[in-house]
Amino acid sequence: MKVLITGGAGFLGQRLAKQLLSRGELNGPDGKPAPITELVLVDVVRGNDFADKRVTTLVGDIADAALLERAIDRDTAVVFHLAAIVSGQAEADFDLGMRINLDASRTLLEVCRARGHRPRVVFTSSVAVYGGTLPEVVRDDTALNPQSSYGTQKAIAELMLADYSRRGFVDGVVLRLPTISVRPGRPNAAASSFASGIIREPLNGEEAICPVPGDTRLWLLSPRRAIEALIAGSELPGERLGNRRIVNLPGVSVTVDEMIDALREVAGDEAANRIRREPDSRVQQIVGSWPGRWDTTRAEQLGLRGDASFVDVVRAYIEDELR
Amino acid sequence: MKVLITGGAGFLGQRLAKQLLSRGELNGPDGKPAPITELVLVDVVRGNDFADKRVTTLVGDIADAALLERAIDRDTAVVFHLAAIVSGQAEADFDLGMRINLDASRTLLEVCRARGHRPRVVFTSSVAVYGGTLPEVVRDDTALNPQSSYGTQKAIAELMLADYSRRGFVDGVVLRLPTISVRPGRPNAAASSFASGIIREPLNGEEAICPVPGDTRLWLLSPRRAIEALIAGSELPGERLGNRRIVNLPGVSVTVDEMIDALREVAGDEAANRIRREPDSRVQQIVGSWPGRWDTTRAEQLGLRGDASFVDVVRAYIEDELR
Repeated sequence: MKVLITGGAGFLGQRLAKQLLSRGELNGPDGKPAPITELVLVDVVRGNDFADKRVTTLVGDIADAALLERAIDRDTAVVFHLAAIVSGQAEADFDLGMRINLDASRTLLEVCRARGHRPRVVFTSSVAVYGGTLPEVVRDDTALNPQSSYGTQKAIAELMLADYSRRGFVDGVVLRLPTISVRPGRPNAAASSFASGIIREPLNGEEAICPVPGDTRLWLLSPRRAIEALIAGSELPGERLGNRRIVNLPGVSVTVDEMIDALREVAGDEAANRIRREPDSRVQQIVGSWPGRWDTTRAEQLGLRGDASFVDVVRAYIEDELR
Repeated sequence: MKVLITGGAGFLGQRLAKQLLSRGELNGPDGKPAPITELVLVDVVRGNDFADKRVTTLVGDIADAALLERAIDRDTAVVFHLAAIVSGQAEADFDLGMRINLDASRTLLEVCRARGHRPRVVFTSSVAVYGGTLPEVVRDDTALNPQSSYGTQKAIAELMLADYSRRGFVDGVVLRLPTISVRPGRPNAAASSFASGIIREPLNGEEAICPVPGDTRLWLLSPRRAIEALIAGSELPGERLGNRRIVNLPGVSVTVDEMIDALREVAGDEAANRIRREPDSRVQQIVGSWPGRWDTTRAEQLGLRGDASFVDVVRAYIEDELR
């Protein structure tokens, strides 16, 4: 089978690619494992192709239908649609967010529809689709009420994917990801960038800025578990999803102070003291509108799991990135 | 002030136009009444212009940006965006529904944004944004789960309007309308068309077909009250809406059997016996996914009201249409 990853040069895309290449196969719609014969990575920049002959890299604008038409054919059994403009950037540049988060998602669905073979499309959504006055634990039937353009665009793409699936144009599954922490590398334009930075920078001996109050509650997932969930999600049989194509993935619910305590527990005072508080109302407004916890019963029934604790998340980061 | 009605040749559009012309004024954003100096009606067909000099009629494709650019300028204080492809037709012709219900709505918002004066945009949405397993009474915070392309497209347009309002591009309000009954005229392609037909046709001495079981619960609003609500909604000060731009309008909750009983009460057995049961699974599937009742506390706090009973609705139809 052929597999496509949009945003294939991004952080999750590259990890997912590596994991898929090492696995070598995926369960198809019939529940039987099939070898991955080609892995297509689409992104605006060229990522690592892992010097693997199965990898095809396409560089271009994901909102360009011609690029997606090159990337998707009737052998494309699974599409991981990860390409997105992150929350902070979509808030700063409305048109760019609409073009990538909404228009490109629709174009991708349209190209799949035109091919006519009903591929599995795994779409990553976000905590940011929720907002406003929220119950302590967000449930599957809690109304979406995004308070950012990013959240709005993700919610719209979710609705499209559900309807395209209902109509049989694609076999879609939406995985709503908790905020990913700890991301390696440098800060990005996501409003949640600090949720990785306050752990990553101190472990690298650098100062980190925390722009939100210590009692801000976050809902987090490690990169390791996120990749596991993406792969497991891609193999979920359509009949187990029924007419509910959206799954809230499990995460850990922690306050920023608890995150710093976990860092202190794993790496000591010196690391924890490298965090400087510097309130940023723009970040607070976006991140503060997201739920700190959601009901994950359904995800667990479907066999998807998160991290056991944030201390484990910090340890996994050190293991995966610093050793 | 200048007022625009999209779908201005349609049933609600024409009634709204007539009412606005007779009223002659609307409260502006400052809460003070201002005379309506021009009323622009946009539609694919030419409607009645009421031989009134204030009326400008524009005929064309609502998804065409050039048409909307002619229709909207910086004097346009209020836009009633009623143009839509109805539920049955949007299910039968997916692309047409996407083009009118989604793309045209977005183009309209973009034209308003480009004008830069933040007009009030009143957008009519629908019971069809809800679906799946629903509580007996749908609340403001019940998740949207549309089970039709029409409902999906309306839900997407709602999300866009909320975000365009949050960003200050428009001053939007979404009024979710119950199913309108009794509509005059002929059946249309809406899955809910029978909800008017089973009253209207028997009162006109004709046979009507009822495609759903008698215990199907509907949430209804008379045309008279719908027009009142549209006008009241257009005058709601933005600060009373806050960051919740969507209002579920009050309706009456009745089963199809109760509707027929009301017809019998008002017009006798002869009328009620003109209804023939002829199940249609396509209609049942769409209409059966809609809520039969929703919580209207917020609408009532905002001063919006529905009908007192379905018997009143039948009487109002006879009064407005048959006398």
